[in-house]
Amino acid sequence: MSLLVVGSMAFDALETPFGKTDKIIGGAATYAALSASYFVNPVNVVSVVGGDFDQEHIRLMHQRGIDTEGVQVKENEKSFFWSGRYFNDMNSRETLVTELNVLADFDPVVPESYQNCEILMLGNLAPQVQRTVIERLNKRPKLIIMDTMNFWMDIALEELKQTIGLVDVLSINDEEARQLSGEYSLVKAAKKIMALGSKFLIIKKGEHGALLFNEEKVFFAPALPLEEVFDPTGAGDTFAGGFAGYLARTGDVSFDNMKRAVINGSALASFCVEKFGTERIINLSSSEIEARVQQFVNLVAFDTVL
Amino acid sequence: MSLLVVGSMAFDALETPFGKTDKIIGGAATYAALSASYFVNPVNVVSVVGGDFDQEHIRLMHQRGIDTEGVQVKENEKSFFWSGRYFNDMNSRETLVTELNVLADFDPVVPESYQNCEILMLGNLAPQVQRTVIERLNKRPKLIIMDTMNFWMDIALEELKQTIGLVDVLSINDEEARQLSGEYSLVKAAKKIMALGSKFLIIKKGEHGALLFNEEKVFFAPALPLEEVFDPTGAGDTFAGGFAGYLARTGDVSFDNMKRAVINGSALASFCVEKFGTERIINLSSSEIEARVQQFVNLVAFDTVL
Repeated sequence: MSLLVVGSMAFDALETPFGKTDKIIGGAATYAALSASYFVNPVNVVSVVGGDFDQEHIRLMHQRGIDTEGVQVKENEKSFFWSGRYFNDMNSRETLVTELNVLADFDPVVPESYQNCEILMLGNLAPQVQRTVIERLNKRPKLIIMDTMNFWMDIALEELKQTIGLVDVLSINDEEARQLSGEYSLVKAAKKIMALGSKFLIIKKGEHGALLFNEEKVFFAPALPLEEVFDPTGAGDTFAGGFAGYLARTGDVSFDNMKRAVINGSALASFCVEKFGTERIINLSSSEIEARVQQFVNLVAFDTVL
Repeated sequence: MSLLVVGSMAFDALETPFGKTDKIIGGAATYAALSASYFVNPVNVVSVVGGDFDQEHIRLMHQRGIDTEGVQVKENEKSFFWSGRYFNDMNSRETLVTELNVLADFDPVVPESYQNCEILMLGNLAPQVQRTVIERLNKRPKLIIMDTMNFWMDIALEELKQTIGLVDVLSINDEEARQLSGEYSLVKAAKKIMALGSKFLIIKKGEHGALLFNEEKVFFAPALPLEEVFDPTGAGDTFAGGFAGYLARTGDVSFDNMKRAVINGSALASFCVEKFGTERIINLSSSEIEARVQQFVNLVAFDTVL
């Protein structure tokens, strides 16, 4: 199935207990497209950058089979910039700088060659921008996957709920699920959130894995116990991109296949956190990925002769 | 294999967001023995209670095949009493009252009929008391499992480390693993803790499941996503009792069988939290337990054709 990824392409400056970076390449679409590219080619991208964006990184994306025809370049403006600092537990962070720049008035354009996409992955963006992309597709994709953040729950809750009502799979983290639903229990939260319209819900729990809900069914994917989480930036986008890419490659959007997609997305995310930014996911080998997926299989495998 | 459970039998008074109780039956040995009794009979118990302990509850334990010959009754003293309040997230709690009473000078006695036990489950107690039980067995059991708490890390760290050096399986929660090792990463923590001498380590993560470590191997068991955690008191003891009971029933203490034991212990713990105290685990049917174990199997099952 053809795949279209929508989201930010940006500069990030990161600080973790292990060190800090200058401006490096980040953004939801960057992580998601790189991750998806290990499963399907091409990965079409709709995004916007300024004249300052790194052309070398665009070339690396092309090498990975990512099509950037849908990436608008605003030569006289600056790319989106985010700077943040992670605390020792790596589960919490504070934002130091947010400069929207080109994202402030992003008007997404879907190239003609991207029409008829079968899977649409909406990375974190203003919910009204996410909805605009859906409206600008001539035909509804077979599957729409949406990622979002607590930020939009704070400032654009009604628009967020409207967009959730238009998608098939929503991907958020546990704190966001609690905020969106007002329920502490994730099982109760999932029911309330799916009632907004998305038939499938993924709740990401960081080092504690991820839950996939659909009607009364639930699947749990563990996170790989790692010696060190070096930099969690982009892990959620990498997860979502791997999930979408796996579904696109296999052409099967059933709940059973989504389980495998969650495992594959989790495997890609487990690489992402091993180095700063996109460094670890820019050049993975297929044997590395296969071995990592096998680690996930082994982690929860037990002979069920009870 | 024969099973001996050692630990407190006590009164608890509990307060959760769902309500509060007067003094009800609690204690590590109570929960662990009840849980183990669904897998193996008899379950021998070494503990101590005061003259105030509930004889009706002793009768209920007998009905479940629990042998209480090793439970000393100090007629003129009072049973151990603990009172605590859980916060809204159910993961944190504060202690309101601790009255050691009969536990203050507990000198464990192992009846002759309990000698030659093959699996010893040491529930949470002062580490020097746990060690005394090991020393009072004529022959070292085939497997010694030990549960403990952060309390002993605060006040008796050296004695705790000595006792850990004598056991095969240590069961603690994630915060305790971090405190004991000084490492945030659970993988690093596990290595440091196993270096103290216990070959197997279980790290309980509450609603996030449990990890079983042995040398370089790791197994992850999920927790069942529940609509409501009503009262987490005793869940860790119930888990440990189910783990020990399953191993005793199957007579196999290999890593592969411990995986199944962790799943069975988790299943019993998932019942425990559904009601106050021991109420939910006093009278389970085997079909209920089988169905719950099957839910754990289904929760992580996916077809590995990738």
